[in-house]
Amino acid sequence: MTEYRTVRVALLGAGSVGSQVARLLLANGDELAARVGARLELAGIAVRNVDAERDVELPRELLTTDAESLIVGADIVIELMGGIEPARSYILSAINSGADVITGNKALLAAHGPELFAQAEQVGAEIYYEAAVAAAIPIIRPLRDSLAGDNINRILAIVNGSTNFILDRMDRFGDSMEDAQKTAFELGFLEADPTLDVGGYDAAQKATILASLAFHSSVDPEGVYREGIEHITAEQIEAARKAGYVIKLLAITERITAEDGTAGVSARVYPALVSREHPLAAVHGGNNAVFVEAEAAGPLMFYGAGAGGVQTASAVLGDLVSAARRHVAGGPGLGESTHADLPLLPIGEVVTKYQITLRVDDRQGVLAEVATVLADGGVSVETVEQTIESTEDVPTAYLVIGTHATRERALQSTVTALNASGVVESVVSVLRVEGV
Amino acid sequence: MTEYRTVRVALLGAGSVGSQVARLLLANGDELAARVGARLELAGIAVRNVDAERDVELPRELLTTDAESLIVGADIVIELMGGIEPARSYILSAINSGADVITGNKALLAAHGPELFAQAEQVGAEIYYEAAVAAAIPIIRPLRDSLAGDNINRILAIVNGSTNFILDRMDRFGDSMEDAQKTAFELGFLEADPTLDVGGYDAAQKATILASLAFHSSVDPEGVYREGIEHITAEQIEAARKAGYVIKLLAITERITAEDGTAGVSARVYPALVSREHPLAAVHGGNNAVFVEAEAAGPLMFYGAGAGGVQTASAVLGDLVSAARRHVAGGPGLGESTHADLPLLPIGEVVTKYQITLRVDDRQGVLAEVATVLADGGVSVETVEQTIESTEDVPTAYLVIGTHATRERALQSTVTALNASGVVESVVSVLRVEGV
Repeated sequence: MTEYRTVRVALLGAGSVGSQVARLLLANGDELAARVGARLELAGIAVRNVDAERDVELPRELLTTDAESLIVGADIVIELMGGIEPARSYILSAINSGADVITGNKALLAAHGPELFAQAEQVGAEIYYEAAVAAAIPIIRPLRDSLAGDNINRILAIVNGSTNFILDRMDRFGDSMEDAQKTAFELGFLEADPTLDVGGYDAAQKATILASLAFHSSVDPEGVYREGIEHITAEQIEAARKAGYVIKLLAITERITAEDGTAGVSARVYPALVSREHPLAAVHGGNNAVFVEAEAAGPLMFYGAGAGGVQTASAVLGDLVSAARRHVAGGPGLGESTHADLPLLPIGEVVTKYQITLRVDDRQGVLAEVATVLADGGVSVETVEQTIESTEDVPTAYLVIGTHATRERALQSTVTALNASGVVESVVSVLRVEGV
Repeated sequence: MTEYRTVRVALLGAGSVGSQVARLLLANGDELAARVGARLELAGIAVRNVDAERDVELPRELLTTDAESLIVGADIVIELMGGIEPARSYILSAINSGADVITGNKALLAAHGPELFAQAEQVGAEIYYEAAVAAAIPIIRPLRDSLAGDNINRILAIVNGSTNFILDRMDRFGDSMEDAQKTAFELGFLEADPTLDVGGYDAAQKATILASLAFHSSVDPEGVYREGIEHITAEQIEAARKAGYVIKLLAITERITAEDGTAGVSARVYPALVSREHPLAAVHGGNNAVFVEAEAAGPLMFYGAGAGGVQTASAVLGDLVSAARRHVAGGPGLGESTHADLPLLPIGEVVTKYQITLRVDDRQGVLAEVATVLADGGVSVETVEQTIESTEDVPTAYLVIGTHATRERALQSTVTALNASGVVESVVSVLRVEGV
């Protein structure tokens, strides 16, 4: 077993993840060869600029700007460039030249996954993408293989470390949204343009990937509902804490039934109230966690670092070992299973609990009037709390209403009705309660 | 793709897990066929007594007492009988007749894993055993595949739900060990003979399996150090709480270096102090969690139900889908990798922190004398706390000493020296501190 055959690996991209992949691959060659039963030869690293400064020093002779030539003749292509093009074209080239592909490109998979998986299936290639969701945390393989004999009901996931860091700062240190974002930026948790993270776009890409995988269906990213955390205030965080909740940006996907009886899938991203008793509430800082509710297995949670070059490189190398073993062993890949073909249902069809905070006049009868509007809208009340705050001797009354499980469509039209009724001064906040 | 080939599955055992596997396999046949690309035919269920009462009603025509005949001609054999014999012989029969094997039998794998894996490798068969550790929680496949490109430094795991339930009762409700065991028994968390759980034997079997897998080495179960929780008192739990700790029965395996420089593996089970800030501290009731510290990935945690028929059946069915896909796709199995062949080092070589509680005379100079004995033994002190408790006006003084990381051998000989020194009245408690 000392005479190994060689598996040729092409690496596209040498950013924070790619350079760590190259470093670990070069440093651990013998150990990886023993695990795979073949030598993993790093044939080259395609970069935009050979002379760019890098965190990790890479052998100059491996660097090339000619990605296409590198792809030709590679057994396995690792794409860590990010972005849609040229990543998409390179992956298609790799597949068509008979290589298996490993990618951490969530944007590409969310937007073009079905196209890439179909092409791979046609030629018997495999696409591995453990690094695309929750960085180092093994979640793709557990969903695809370990839970392959079970049925997943719901996934609630913290998949964006930046927003978790921000919300956690606000919760634990009382920071304002502005201050928390500033700290996140200073500590490297947030890009100069925070929109992708703060706006929930990154989480929505991951929700798309998780939904497709968990429910064996092609999910259109345009149909994934998305709200960011930009409007969350320190007051909401504080009120949540008092009520026993923490606010987390969740990527959620679940099997649901529409009002007309259609069975389908929901995929959505928004800041939600989560009970402090829930395991997701204990996920602090930039960490990620994926909470899976399966029919037979019950609740499971996968927890770990949600970002970082070397952490994400671990997931890429795990995929590389799997791909190389398959290369040595032969046999077709598994492909992506979309046999269930469930439709993606709109946010209006989602059934969950809500917490509605209303500013009302401090007079008798208000509660009864509000209750009537809610009842007319089909919203059933579980809890009500009335509080009075006085600023400069002017009292303001608030009603905090917890609802029973309600369909989003009914809830939204009822909120509209409340606003129009003249009964309330304003609707201060509507938050969904998840994990119950 | 509607004309599926058939994969014949033989099930050995119809206890709480086996009967759920049979039920789910029969109920979800079409869905599983779509996922596998082949129909999973339950060829039969071998039981000791065809007429026994079962939680789940199983088709009478599938039940047989003739396991050997069932095994012949099966493509995949699922062994859920437990115990060493005849399970071991049946698994060898299955392997030798060309079948892949799925088992949840931790006792068998801990005792005879190397023999079974070697035999399987020889004939190109595969043994799947996700259900053997932490029930429904995917941990075997993540270690074997997802982290295959990384290096594992340490695993701290709560793998016995019964003892976690007991210690959690004591911590959260102030129960005595006796009362907590009684409750655990009443709620079905503990067998009539609790030794296997309470004595740490079950956890030690799982530690053996985890150590072998994580460090690519054959681990002799006889060399796994084991202490149970039977001597843990309500006073220790209370003292731990005050010091910011919780006591958990941990199965630990890590890469260590012996005093003489030998690189090796430690596998051990004992009740340990864990900081309340550590993710393992939040694992309540009968749940399990496996905390993995990997070189590149950093800390990861896998959490979920640690027992239960239907939960464990989820893990078995995940293995079944994998085995069946391999059956359809062809290609050799991965085998168990033992290429690293690291020696199992004895408990004396382990380096960890300790908390030592001493009863001492309440007189000047005691602390200095204790400190001298510790220093002579090579034990470096991190924290000291002196408390005085008065019972009927008789004061008793206690010293609680937290050590820096110390090698177990030095610690034990120092404790012996303390006992012999005459400086202390008694050594009340010595507990290891883990997860730091």
